[in-house]
Amino acid sequence: MNISKQVDIKKEDLRIFARSASDAKGPVMMILNALEIMERNNIELEYNLKVIMDFEEEISSPNLADAVKKYSSKLKSDALLIFDGPKHPSNLPTLTFGARGISDITLITYGPIVPQHSGHFGNYAPNPVFRMSEILSSMKDSNGRVTIPGFYDGIELDEKTLKILAEVPDDEEKMMNDMQFKKPDNVGKNYQESIQYPSINVRGIESGWVREEVRTIVPSECIAEIDVRLVLESDPIRLHNLIKSHIQELGYYVIDRRPTKDERLKYNKIVTFVSSFDYDAFRTDIESEIGKWLVKSLKKTFGIEPVKKRTSGGSVPISPFVNTLGIPAVTVPTVNQDNNQHSPNENIKIENYITGIETYLGILTDKF
Amino acid sequence: MNISKQVDIKKEDLRIFARSASDAKGPVMMILNALEIMERNNIELEYNLKVIMDFEEEISSPNLADAVKKYSSKLKSDALLIFDGPKHPSNLPTLTFGARGISDITLITYGPIVPQHSGHFGNYAPNPVFRMSEILSSMKDSNGRVTIPGFYDGIELDEKTLKILAEVPDDEEKMMNDMQFKKPDNVGKNYQESIQYPSINVRGIESGWVREEVRTIVPSECIAEIDVRLVLESDPIRLHNLIKSHIQELGYYVIDRRPTKDERLKYNKIVTFVSSFDYDAFRTDIESEIGKWLVKSLKKTFGIEPVKKRTSGGSVPISPFVNTLGIPAVTVPTVNQDNNQHSPNENIKIENYITGIETYLGILTDKF
Repeated sequence: MNISKQVDIKKEDLRIFARSASDAKGPVMMILNALEIMERNNIELEYNLKVIMDFEEEISSPNLADAVKKYSSKLKSDALLIFDGPKHPSNLPTLTFGARGISDITLITYGPIVPQHSGHFGNYAPNPVFRMSEILSSMKDSNGRVTIPGFYDGIELDEKTLKILAEVPDDEEKMMNDMQFKKPDNVGKNYQESIQYPSINVRGIESGWVREEVRTIVPSECIAEIDVRLVLESDPIRLHNLIKSHIQELGYYVIDRRPTKDERLKYNKIVTFVSSFDYDAFRTDIESEIGKWLVKSLKKTFGIEPVKKRTSGGSVPISPFVNTLGIPAVTVPTVNQDNNQHSPNENIKIENYITGIETYLGILTDKF
Repeated sequence: MNISKQVDIKKEDLRIFARSASDAKGPVMMILNALEIMERNNIELEYNLKVIMDFEEEISSPNLADAVKKYSSKLKSDALLIFDGPKHPSNLPTLTFGARGISDITLITYGPIVPQHSGHFGNYAPNPVFRMSEILSSMKDSNGRVTIPGFYDGIELDEKTLKILAEVPDDEEKMMNDMQFKKPDNVGKNYQESIQYPSINVRGIESGWVREEVRTIVPSECIAEIDVRLVLESDPIRLHNLIKSHIQELGYYVIDRRPTKDERLKYNKIVTFVSSFDYDAFRTDIESEIGKWLVKSLKKTFGIEPVKKRTSGGSVPISPFVNTLGIPAVTVPTVNQDNNQHSPNENIKIENYITGIETYLGILTDKF
């Protein structure tokens, strides 16, 4: 009985739905399948293989950096391939040569020490949301470009790079249609250009109460959670200092903790600024030895030029390898973009499972 | 056994702690006590008394306006005294001749239709928090003064009024010390002046997630809850239209509902603007007949000039009486300011309970 025929499903639409199907049990099984196929057919590996499985990646790999340091001699190698993440939305063979890093800033602005009746004290007690709005709105222009001087310094995209970025077959009209907005932030001329730059993103803000819980108060505090995505060219400490100086220039007393009562009575505008660094950015030259080798391998396996992403916008905890071991890293993604990773209905396309095994087989059997 | 002596409590610090002690079972019992005292002593009322008790005031008196209309002939009277709210913080005899009105605006700004990974789409998908910050920060200067042209139009405080406002014995240093801020919003030269103007207050804002729930996303929406306190001089519809026009001038497509997908793809900057009106402001001339009569009565009872507040910052649902019945209204507060109204440990000072009865007795036995 051919089910797919009966219900009119195209072969390429068949999917396995399961928790972790794409992230990352699917890719783990793909490489085991590839190794099994080689064993059955008595195909020898062309080089030594060291497999690292990090089961803490989803909680920011708190032990990875130390483990890499501790076992650095055992982990010594020529290159690192990362078998994680989805392919380009076109589902064409894909190589990703870098990832943005990530760092965080938490900002808190202050009004009265406890929420006050907004009738009695509206027009009198300073409102922390207006304070926060002043800070946030001063960081970007209305086209989404960071206006803090020096923020984009050091990033120069030459003709060759612009060409590589333009070759990625993004369907931006579809992206905007899917996300339902008219115009993206104006950082780069296209999506790939935009993610070559560091970003300032407000991922959350909260003050007082909203909707059915609304209360007529002047809130006591406003908290904003920011993530600053990093690229290779931008030193994260420099970026955070630029942001901090910018806020100081607005007249704020900037501290890394809650203000004391004395400070609250001494300074008119106070902001708590707490920053942390999660992952560094990394980027491997597409023209490097490992880059050329992988492009050649995927071309051989699939007969077409792979999509070459200079960097992904998101972050992967790979910097410990790149920095401690001093080796280049490239991501070889295999799963479908629409896999609902971390969400209900996570899935992997059967097609991606099979081409994934082919991808790994090609790489494992190719002389480096 | 004199407990207060043993534990060294001053007589004026004795309090009854109970839910509703000050708001408003205390004042209700005070007037019953006053009437009982008059009955026992065969003292006749100098005028007809109509008592209105609104048990829905804490839920914005949804039925009051209709009831006043329906029973307007029964409620016909010369003046309305409001026995609600706390006295001036000095706890001196107090009369309040008006209250600000209140109206609400809910604003929503939009980013991607669902939250997006801030790595993949930071620098690309528009961020609704930056949008909201642009809107909010454009409404006020960094000293808290509304910058929307015309917002304060019509309010003129003449020399006599400024003198009345200056006579209120506010201890602003204590207020700021208690609320722990250095400098109030710069709307008036002092607290009483500030509350003679309409206000724009952000009482709540929310987008994405913060603190331990923080997620690396570009949020899909940002909601801000605003209350606009009203004064007699400012037509609330005019104020809301000024705010709306101001947002439109920033380039926003302003609608009173969520945008459709077509609208999201057609307009770059969209804001939902939903407004409602709760209470109008009211203000009775201090020099009016009722005003002069009450000042005289309190002076006679306590031997000192009462604190005369031209308006309170907060709002009371009194406009149906003032507008439908066409009568002046004055608030005669009796309870202590620090009564923790609506909060844990609500209380009334014994001293205020007694002076409250004296206040009512004085008024009820005085010829109008």
